[in-house]
This record gives sequence, C-alpha cells and structure tokens, in this order.
Amino acid sequence: MSEWPDTRILDLFGIEIPIIQAPMAGATTPEMVLAVSEAGGLGALPSAQYNTEQLRAALDTIRAGTKKPINVNFFAHTMPQADPARQMAWRARLASYYVEAGLDPADPIPSGGRAPFDMSFCDVVEAYKPEIVSFHFGLPAAALLDRVRATGAKIISSATTVAEAQWLAERGVDAIIAMGFEAGGHRGNFLTENMATQVGTMALVPQIVDAVNVPVIAAGGIADGRGVAAAFALGASAVQVGTAYLFATEAKIPAVHRAALMRAGDDNTALTNVFTGRPARGVINRVMREVGPISDLAPAFPTAGGALAPLRAKAEAAGGDDFTNLWSGQAAKLARPMSSAEFTHVLAADGLRIMRRLAGGKSD
Amino acid sequence: MSEWPDTRILDLFGIEIPIIQAPMAGATTPEMVLAVSEAGGLGALPSAQYNTEQLRAALDTIRAGTKKPINVNFFAHTMPQADPARQMAWRARLASYYVEAGLDPADPIPSGGRAPFDMSFCDVVEAYKPEIVSFHFGLPAAALLDRVRATGAKIISSATTVAEAQWLAERGVDAIIAMGFEAGGHRGNFLTENMATQVGTMALVPQIVDAVNVPVIAAGGIADGRGVAAAFALGASAVQVGTAYLFATEAKIPAVHRAALMRAGDDNTALTNVFTGRPARGVINRVMREVGPISDLAPAFPTAGGALAPLRAKAEAAGGDDFTNLWSGQAAKLARPMSSAEFTHVLAADGLRIMRRLAGGKSD
Repeated sequence: MSEWPDTRILDLFGIEIPIIQAPMAGATTPEMVLAVSEAGGLGALPSAQYNTEQLRAALDTIRAGTKKPINVNFFAHTMPQADPARQMAWRARLASYYVEAGLDPADPIPSGGRAPFDMSFCDVVEAYKPEIVSFHFGLPAAALLDRVRATGAKIISSATTVAEAQWLAERGVDAIIAMGFEAGGHRGNFLTENMATQVGTMALVPQIVDAVNVPVIAAGGIADGRGVAAAFALGASAVQVGTAYLFATEAKIPAVHRAALMRAGDDNTALTNVFTGRPARGVINRVMREVGPISDLAPAFPTAGGALAPLRAKAEAAGGDDFTNLWSGQAAKLARPMSSAEFTHVLAADGLRIMRRLAGGKSD
Repeated sequence: MSEWPDTRILDLFGIEIPIIQAPMAGATTPEMVLAVSEAGGLGALPSAQYNTEQLRAALDTIRAGTKKPINVNFFAHTMPQADPARQMAWRARLASYYVEAGLDPADPIPSGGRAPFDMSFCDVVEAYKPEIVSFHFGLPAAALLDRVRATGAKIISSATTVAEAQWLAERGVDAIIAMGFEAGGHRGNFLTENMATQVGTMALVPQIVDAVNVPVIAAGGIADGRGVAAAFALGASAVQVGTAYLFATEAKIPAVHRAALMRAGDDNTALTNVFTGRPARGVINRVMREVGPISDLAPAFPTAGGALAPLRAKAEAAGGDDFTNLWSGQAAKLARPMSSAEFTHVLAADGLRIMRRLAGGKSD
C-alpha cells in the first residue's frame, strides 16, 4: 500500500518517493544526488560537463554514500561540424563587450563544450550500472542505446511535445519526462526547433499521458507541494524538479547565480540560445537583453558558449552576472532553501497533504 | 457542505460549480451563456464585438432563459490614435495576397474593431445588472469602474503575471483570472508587452495565489477534469475554460475554425498579433506562418484586423482558413464535443472524481 495515487514510477525505479531531482550540469553535485536518493527520491547525476574520469569519481562518491537507485544523465546531441566563419561572426557580435572588459577580442577562447553520450561514457555505464539512465535531446544511436539497455538500466528521456513523446515511446523508453515550457535550463526539444510552439506543463502532461503507454514524469513549473499534487492530477506518475534544488545546500552554483535566483520572479526568465546555441531558460541578464534572448548569430550547440567564457569570468570576478547563464524555471519564487534530503521530504509531504485535502470537500 | 475543496468563488458569485465559461467574442452565443449558468457554472457573455443594442438583445435572451448569475465581459483597451501611415504599410505587406485573391489592395476596408468599455456599455450594465462583470486588458478608468461597482456587480479581470495580479488587487477587484501561457485567444496582458516572459499556468497560478488576497481563477490549458483538479491543487478557487467550449453545440464559429480545432494538437498553435494587433493564441495557418506569427508591421489593436477581412471572407467562401483567426489554446485535443450544459456537468464531475482519487493512495 502506497500513499501515492499512482505507483508506476515507484515500482519501475524501485524508489519510495516519486520525486526526481533534475540533473543540472554544473550545479548538481554527487552529494546532492546521493542525498536525494538516500531520502527515497531519485537523485540524478548530470554528465555533460564531466569527462569519464570525473564521472567515475562522482559515481564512486555516490555509490559509497547510498545503496539506493540513482539516475545518470547524458546529453544525446550530435556534435556540429566546425564552422569557423560563424564562430567569427559570433565573436564579432561580442567584440565590443571584450573591449569594454579590457579583453582582446582576438584572444583564444575555450571550446565551451558539453560532451554527448559516446562509447567511453557507455563504458562507465556498463561499469557502474546506474539503475536509471536518462537522456536529453532525444536518444543516442541504437547500438549505444542497446548497450545501455543490456546493463539492465531503465531508460528515460525528455519530450517537449506529444510528437517527441511518441518518438521516444516507439524506441522503447521506460518512462517519459513531459517537459513543459516553464522548465529551467536547456529545453529537451529534438524534433522541433520552433520555440513559438513549445507547450505549457498544464497542457502538455495530459496530452502525453493520453498518447503513450509508459508512465509520465511531469517537469516544468513544479517547485512546491502544489505542483506535485497538480502533476498527479494531470496524470503524471512522478515529477522532476530542477530549479528548486538549486536552492539546496548541496547545489554548486556561482554566487551571482544564487543571487539571481533569490530575485527570480514569475516573469523575469526567458528562453535564450546565447549561452550554448540551444534554447534554455534562465533569469534575464544583460547579454540576453542585448544580444538575445534568441540570436540567429549564436553558433550551433554546444559551441556558442566558448566566446562568452572570458567575459563571464571577468564579470563574475567583479560580482557581475552580465554573461553568466542563470538557469532558472518560472517557479523559482516558490522554492525554499534547505538541504536536498529535507527538501525532498518536505515536497513529498506537502504534495500528499494537498492531495488529501482536495478530496475532503469543504464545510460551509 | 460543498464537494469542492475551495468554495470562495462559489460563495462570491453565488454559483454551484466553480467553472467559468470563457467569454469568446464572436464564438460565445447567448444560448451558451445561459446554458452554462443554468447548469450551475458561470456563463460569460463577450461584448467586444457587440454594439449596445446587440448587447441588450443578448442579455434579454439570457435573462429570459435563466435566473442564475451571469458574467458580462468587456475589453478595457484604449483606442489608438489613427495611424494612416502604419495602416498603409500593413496593407502593402498584405497587398500580394489581395492580388492573389483577385481583390484590389486599394479597396476600402472595414475598421476591424473591437469596442472598449465606455459610458454607453456602462449604461447597459446599470440596466441589466449582471452579477459579475469581467474585463480583459486591465480595467477601465476609475470613474467607469466605480459605476460598475455601484451596481453591485462583482468585478474580475485577467492577469498574465504576478505584477498584473497585484495591480488588479490594488484596484479592488473581487477575484483574479490567472491566465497562463497555454490559453487561447487574446492574452490579457496589460502591464507588459513582452511575450518572451509570459508564464505557464503551472507556474503562474500558485505565484498569484501567494501574491494576492482575493480568490484566483485558473485559466490556460484546462479542458478536462484533470486540468480542473490540477487547478485546485495549485490553489485556484475556480477555473475558466475557453477552447473546450468552442466544441460545444452552442458555439458559433466558422466551419474552417471548427475544422482547425478538430486537428489542433499540443504544438500547432502560437501567439500571433496579425489578426488584431495584440498577441492572441490560435492554430497556425498561412498568414501566421508567412506574415507572423508576430509582425512589427501589424497596426495597434484593434485596427490590424480590417485589412485581413476581405482576404478572410474570400478564403472562407472557398473553404479556406488562410486568413481566419483560429483561436485555440494548447489543450484543444482534450476537449469533447457536447452541449454546453452537459460539458459543464462532465467537467465538474470528472474534476471531483480525480480529486477524490488523488487522496486514495493505491494498493499494491
């Protein structure tokens, strides 16, 4: 007997609380992952900013801290062809900021990489056998996906539309994250690039639930117990929560990002491609306002970020957030700072309490 | 004792079912309004495409059909200064479509008007005393608003951001419609014109609930019982449902609009300003794709529509929807065609059933 009205994700993953901490590259630490899993939810480790050695070290830390199921997340993008002309146009667009910062626009820049899932990452999956492997931006090639499946891992990925959910279901994923327009960080879109037709969580979740036979995990705009209860009302079997975990003690984010989250409201984030080349939601700052939020000049993902790195480093050193990707969803205001474990428990308890209250009716 | 977990809107409006049928100018008929109110919900009559005589006639029909509370809705925009140069640029942008349709781009065009609330509309309110008066695009001038309030009407308006909700609350509205990004038709935005920062229903409702002391009505992406239950989970005291009522037998929409709704999916609507000059959500068609969805050339609301009218008439006569405003939210796919009364009952029953089920937990 579970208190939860839908136990499909609990049963599938072997967890006690249907709350998945979103893997947030750069911000999610191994300590956050093990704390959430140990609390009964599902901690998720992002790998896109790790090399395989760093990933192994992180997994060693997590496995030493908890015996419970964990989720390892990978980006499934294809690396673009080098496009030096486009890079130069992008650097030209940013050159005046370099001059303003006392930097030379012609200085070498870092590659600004986010690494896609590949054979060497797959070796790590085979060695550590995370119980759940999640992908963002679709799925890797079939041969790689088969290797992951052969480890016994449950495989999940994000859909931003019904069409993407159906595509994932046809390829045999075990569950689908329905990622609404409200969500922070990179959109998971992979069949469409049209941001004008992205779908809000309220409309997306029930339509994906109706369209596929696997359980659905709601994401986007969920940061307190009300969102958890609403997600289950819409037919979801679990929630994935990102931004609210950025307020947790285990989150590792720059001070300027933390400050931006503290002032985040409902309407000061936007989707932008200036930081990486793919649309992602963050708190609006100077470079988003002046260059974006969407710029046709931004080179293909993930290569747009390199040219911003020197500007970001200089600005952050002086306490400025003009060039930092301040990822946040639209519900940051609902979050409360506490430890990841405590937040997982509070979120679950609040969600259950609200669901019980909904059934009660009300005396006049 | 009510079955509903929150009775603030039921008590405030004196209705039995916390479902408000959205006032949809052109599509909502007096028959729909009286059917919804008679069923126990709140029928809402849109006035923006009526003159006062037509409004009186509609109210006569409704009052003859039900003694229950009704809602009359007005647009609260200010009419723009005439801008012949901008109109001419807009007509030039559309001229090739005129030629293609065998029309003369220099022919006189209708004014394309949506009438704002004014003294003569206010006379009708004083004469008919609708129990609830709602506004879109903010509120009318204080003197007019005072006259409405003096009739005893409860006053409500839409907010697309927390800031707009606070603005409305400060001006003494009795309840606030939290209109999420998913909603069809005209956005209610009035303090911002930035569509990049509009907020999804999942994130918007709880943040407005936290920010104001009046009850909140959730709108946007709600078209079945799951959405109703989710809205109450988020803290709403009622829902406003638009698109799903376009499927009702009492809806009056062109055949091409009905056909577009039948094929509407989660991701084939967008916000567009080409039909009226203000952003509104509709099913994507040719003019949205080729001229918009957002065009800097579109003249100020409501004057953009006139130049499209001849194109629309010609296309619709041939069964085409290239120039018709096909208003729809992102959840049309969830709607089911039936009478307005039956739909109101089904929506309420489904919502209550889902809320009861949420509290039940689940046996293994």
